[in-house]
Amino acid sequence: MKNGTSPKYSSLGFKDIIVQFEDAVAVVTLNRAQERNTWSLTLVHELVKAFDLFDRDDRVRAVVLTAEPTAPAFCSGADISKGWDLLYQDESFHEGPHAHRDTAGIVSLAILRCRKITVVAVNGNAAGVGVTALQIPFDFRFAWSDARLLMPFVHRGVAPEGVSSYLLPRLLGHSRATALFLSGAAVKPDSPLLQGFFYKSFPTREEIFPGALAFAKELAANTSQTSVAMTKALLWRGADTPEGQHLLESRTIQTLGSAADSLEGAKSFKEKRPAKFTDTLSKNLTTWMPWWHEVGTVYRKTKL
Amino acid sequence: MKNGTSPKYSSLGFKDIIVQFEDAVAVVTLNRAQERNTWSLTLVHELVKAFDLFDRDDRVRAVVLTAEPTAPAFCSGADISKGWDLLYQDESFHEGPHAHRDTAGIVSLAILRCRKITVVAVNGNAAGVGVTALQIPFDFRFAWSDARLLMPFVHRGVAPEGVSSYLLPRLLGHSRATALFLSGAAVKPDSPLLQGFFYKSFPTREEIFPGALAFAKELAANTSQTSVAMTKALLWRGADTPEGQHLLESRTIQTLGSAADSLEGAKSFKEKRPAKFTDTLSKNLTTWMPWWHEVGTVYRKTKL
Amino acid sequence: MKNGTSPKYSSLGFKDIIVQFEDAVAVVTLNRAQERNTWSLTLVHELVKAFDLFDRDDRVRAVVLTAEPTAPAFCSGADISKGWDLLYQDESFHEGPHAHRDTAGIVSLAILRCRKITVVAVNGNAAGVGVTALQIPFDFRFAWSDARLLMPFVHRGVAPEGVSSYLLPRLLGHSRATALFLSGAAVKPDSPLLQGFFYKSFPTREEIFPGALAFAKELAANTSQTSVAMTKALLWRGADTPEGQHLLESRTIQTLGSAADSLEGAKSFKEKRPAKFTDTLSKNLTTWMPWWHEVGTVYRKTKL
Repeated sequence: MKNGTSPKYSSLGFKDIIVQFEDAVAVVTLNRAQERNTWSLTLVHELVKAFDLFDRDDRVRAVVLTAEPTAPAFCSGADISKGWDLLYQDESFHEGPHAHRDTAGIVSLAILRCRKITVVAVNGNAAGVGVTALQIPFDFRFAWSDARLLMPFVHRGVAPEGVSSYLLPRLLGHSRATALFLSGAAVKPDSPLLQGFFYKSFPTREEIFPGALAFAKELAANTSQTSVAMTKALLWRGADTPEGQHLLESRTIQTLGSAADSLEGAKSFKEKRPAKFTDTLSKNLTTWMPWWHEVGTVYRKTKL
Repeated sequence: MKNGTSPKYSSLGFKDIIVQFEDAVAVVTLNRAQERNTWSLTLVHELVKAFDLFDRDDRVRAVVLTAEPTAPAFCSGADISKGWDLLYQDESFHEGPHAHRDTAGIVSLAILRCRKITVVAVNGNAAGVGVTALQIPFDFRFAWSDARLLMPFVHRGVAPEGVSSYLLPRLLGHSRATALFLSGAAVKPDSPLLQGFFYKSFPTREEIFPGALAFAKELAANTSQTSVAMTKALLWRGADTPEGQHLLESRTIQTLGSAADSLEGAKSFKEKRPAKFTDTLSKNLTTWMPWWHEVGTVYRKTKL
Repeated sequence: MKNGTSPKYSSLGFKDIIVQFEDAVAVVTLNRAQERNTWSLTLVHELVKAFDLFDRDDRVRAVVLTAEPTAPAFCSGADISKGWDLLYQDESFHEGPHAHRDTAGIVSLAILRCRKITVVAVNGNAAGVGVTALQIPFDFRFAWSDARLLMPFVHRGVAPEGVSSYLLPRLLGHSRATALFLSGAAVKPDSPLLQGFFYKSFPTREEIFPGALAFAKELAANTSQTSVAMTKALLWRGADTPEGQHLLESRTIQTLGSAADSLEGAKSFKEKRPAKFTDTLSKNLTTWMPWWHEVGTVYRKTKL
């Protein structure tokens, strides 16, 4: 398919999300405004499917996730009015405690594994998974400066989910992550505890999505898809020594340095014009990723 | 023992610390004001014993460490007026260099291993171990905004102790940690180098402890003991890949999600009332911790 | 050689750098002002040689790297006007993709392995390797507050180099590192994305180097060479558990605690006078470093 052709994500029959595609940017809008965009198993499955498609669809260069700015909340987390049942609705629950897979983590991993630029436009209040799965795994976070953000795990008898206990200390350092998780305090984007977390914030809810979308389009138009993917891999799947990372970077640079995008990058720079990148993940990045050990997380039933 | 019964820590015969208990919060006050609360082997042994008890005593939900606000210092570090002898006073010193165990590190590990919420109220100047062992390993740091903090290792011919060379770069990032350790500069809590280190600061020495105690009591009253312990374990003993952490979080959530505290967490949220958590570490968190490899640090004499 | 004797670095025939020595501080000035201090293979080889000498020369206690404040730039990165050829000029290129070694990474590792205090005085604009290799691996960064800093890898079809994908997330956290790498945005030292990166900034280009040099001389005069080396090793080559780090710190403290510098450190402190440290790396730190696994990065030709 030609790069730029609009994929028909609308035909995939998503219910709890709406997916649109524009200028190489896929836009995901949470579609449960009446339920305060709370978590649902349908939402989980659709987000995983969508981010997996974005990862593999060469036409997608960036993704923006958002909610209706008029929704009562960006995402109010899990609906626990009937208890924590949602956590146990997977079919393998009765096999024992080793069989459960946190649905927030399943979504976070899908976002983290998406090799395109990911942007979230937080245009309302958020709690629980609305922060852990729907903000923390993204590359860029845009926020309404008056949004109320809450990770109340210690006040609810549970614990951090959505791989947030791995990602947040790495994003902001353990001091801020510990304070956020153990206080369970509600914070706003300008809180000292969140310094460095949001790329940009805006005073009104209506501004967030247009701001995030313009940013995503700008990056989609001017970045190399293969560069982005390799940069993300180096950042999250790097070696555990400086020397090991040097070897990874060396091979990355040589792989990219002999491909079309880097030639265009140098040429456009010399000619003082915007670059037109054409390399794609499916065609030009097939030979040596991943270099890391993947821990399998899919649960396989132990009984027929 | 009934939850809430006051444990008689006063009967344990502590000399260099005073331990009190109030509303599920254990308060440790350094009791060497006349010696500027400098380090002593007695202090080391008592702090280790106290934090080990707090960890195992289900009645303790939070710990606050502080000094007399009228003391000449919060803790002036090691008393090196007679050289570094304190470092070598352990009985195994003559067995060789492999036998020594840094006393600051012994205390830091005891604090780090305490699965309850730990808060330090730094109401005076601090140096050396007064920062490394008595501030860095805590979950929350409250400070007098005029406190002078000093880690002068490079100016004294020694090196970071108290596991600070592991913890500080993770708390604040390597850029700030390197600058603090290699400059050896005296800093105040509002220094750009300490951004994110203190949870809150107050302008007068008298305010710190009451502020920290009120905060600790609030958390002690409204947090699940098992949630707190698991959150701390996920933060400091996590997996080294996102997928591995997802497995740990999944099992954590299922373990906690079927216990009384999470049911009460959901119920109280629905009923818009404060939760009353009853799960305890000794009764409800016995089955699968620790999941990590513990490196043994106790020195065992090699000769009879 | 006597500590303080001026080493004749000028006799080493460096071309793309100028090395001077003053009060135990080695000063490296980039000497390609007419080429905007762009990268060259000569520059690479000379920087590696220089930092290797600084590491092993006991007379050197600190290093400052800078550029002429009148140069068009501190370092404009690689000169890609002829494409990315520089990346492939090493002799082993034709052996295959496993043979390449990123020249920026070779320099970064040399700086990172230098056990002395390293300071960079960024007195002009910088791009690419001018940030990754010539700023990120240093202990302290001083900057002109109006300097324009650029890491445009995703806009050029390449990826982070100079071990920056390992170091930057550790220096500042993954949130800021990701935003810097994936946006490719030009930033100034006071950008929220760079908080904690620079130790100090100055409003005019002329002030940076004198400020950095005075700071380096102050540290060179008042720090123990062995303390500095061990602190750097603990920070960048530490254990991966708190307990493991406790063992490393314990042995470090005992090694240093029985040497002349720590005795002088305690004595001078007691006598309220500046310390005069005499221990050196070549004489007093020979017995047990390194404790870590070194990944070999030197390429060895596979054919005769």
